[in-house]
Amino acid sequence: MSSTRDALNFPESERAQMADYLPSKTSIAAAHLKSLPHTTLTYATSIDSQITISPGIGSPISGPASKAMTHYLRSKHDAILIGVNTAIADNPSLNCRLEGVGGYGGGNSLDGQPRPIIIDPRGRWNFGEKNKIFGLVKDGRGKAPWIITVEHENEISCKKRDFLNRVGGKYIFLSPGQTGKFSWGQILQALRKERIESVMIEGGAGIINGMLAESRELIDGIIVTIAPVWLGKGGVVVTPERENQGKEAVRLKEVKWIPLGQDVVCCGKVLQ
Amino acid sequence: MSSTRDALNFPESERAQMADYLPSKTSIAAAHLKSLPHTTLTYATSIDSQITISPGIGSPISGPASKAMTHYLRSKHDAILIGVNTAIADNPSLNCRLEGVGGYGGGNSLDGQPRPIIIDPRGRWNFGEKNKIFGLVKDGRGKAPWIITVEHENEISCKKRDFLNRVGGKYIFLSPGQTGKFSWGQILQALRKERIESVMIEGGAGIINGMLAESRELIDGIIVTIAPVWLGKGGVVVTPERENQGKEAVRLKEVKWIPLGQDVVCCGKVLQ
Repeated sequence: MSSTRDALNFPESERAQMADYLPSKTSIAAAHLKSLPHTTLTYATSIDSQITISPGIGSPISGPASKAMTHYLRSKHDAILIGVNTAIADNPSLNCRLEGVGGYGGGNSLDGQPRPIIIDPRGRWNFGEKNKIFGLVKDGRGKAPWIITVEHENEISCKKRDFLNRVGGKYIFLSPGQTGKFSWGQILQALRKERIESVMIEGGAGIINGMLAESRELIDGIIVTIAPVWLGKGGVVVTPERENQGKEAVRLKEVKWIPLGQDVVCCGKVLQ
Repeated sequence: MSSTRDALNFPESERAQMADYLPSKTSIAAAHLKSLPHTTLTYATSIDSQITISPGIGSPISGPASKAMTHYLRSKHDAILIGVNTAIADNPSLNCRLEGVGGYGGGNSLDGQPRPIIIDPRGRWNFGEKNKIFGLVKDGRGKAPWIITVEHENEISCKKRDFLNRVGGKYIFLSPGQTGKFSWGQILQALRKERIESVMIEGGAGIINGMLAESRELIDGIIVTIAPVWLGKGGVVVTPERENQGKEAVRLKEVKWIPLGQDVVCCGKVLQ
């Protein structure tokens, strides 16, 4: 058995309330017909829709119960995805610390540990042993990341590539579209080709705003945690661009609000 | 009995959940010691903290259950307060349409009807019979407004003053502080002098942001309705200025989240 040190618990009663929004055999099969994984969008925010008090500062906004929920959600997905800015700013762990998953009392097989995916088109992330994520990989408590990038294999420094391969991660190379950016369809289809059946998109604001504005039809479930705080002007805001100036950007259907500690969790599906 | 046409209902079970945040004998007595009314801040917002899709457009964001709640809240306050921009943009009714209050099945005495207060320092609101609020006054379904202004009585047009007095409203004259603005303490103390024991501050964004940033210590209860929608960039945003750039602007304590139709209602008190 692996150690349960640092392990988190999330009650069964609350798990049950979220089942409709999480990957299931049915939802994965439906997504697979479009060569996509089941895709969940999730983030934690203040009442004034900010995910952090200043750019580059990863202060926790939501409380301990919401943190345990995030790790439960991670255990239900094959992969978790963030943008490179978050990887650089937060030095995140990107593993699942739910009690009972691999590395946290669930044996050493990494069962239940999601694959971290970093979207880093221009190879800006200078990772190495110093990053938390690789410390956890070394300790058998998390999987090594896959990095999605446009750089051709020859242009990645040998040192970065060799380090990543050695710890069990890899690069996934994609061609950007005409806008110079990857499309969400392209990213998600690439993950499905790699046998990722479910992915949880976690942030940061650029990733979330982009997904909500450009590709809401690819989102199978949205889970947003709201903390009872106004961070006030100057933080990092989630608010997508509108397709049509006079019309709301995104509305949810099949909505469920679940109070959780001091926070509330909004679960829903996108009204297409 | 007055007509119950257009009257709204709000269930007892949900009323009970909100009692701790609403004016009570105790909270009114405590506020009175500081020559203040019990002050409730309330508004409805999208998940991305916007109260309307464009400046000057008063589109409803929250659903019918939340609307009924707003009218219940109005019935629990002596006065409801808005800024002049909202008065101009929305042509609001500013009465209470809860079944059982004066004008809505509760007799003709206007019992339970709150006093509308408009903050209009420079006398910009050009009101008259065309405004919904005065139609309701005429029908015995609402009280006439009081307007808080800096203009000296002689400078108000006779036509506006006479009209307002004739329908039972009035002007309240205050001197602005050094910033050229009224302070919230000054406004609320003026209302208490007029025997207003409880006031519900409803908007718009300028009023709410100002109150949260400058005078959060005067707020006795906050009730925010959040609808499951992202309006997207370009709307009217609630996010107060920070006193200290590195510190959150306002945090709630004694928080209760109440799902209501598709929306959620956040009730709390300000952590001072």
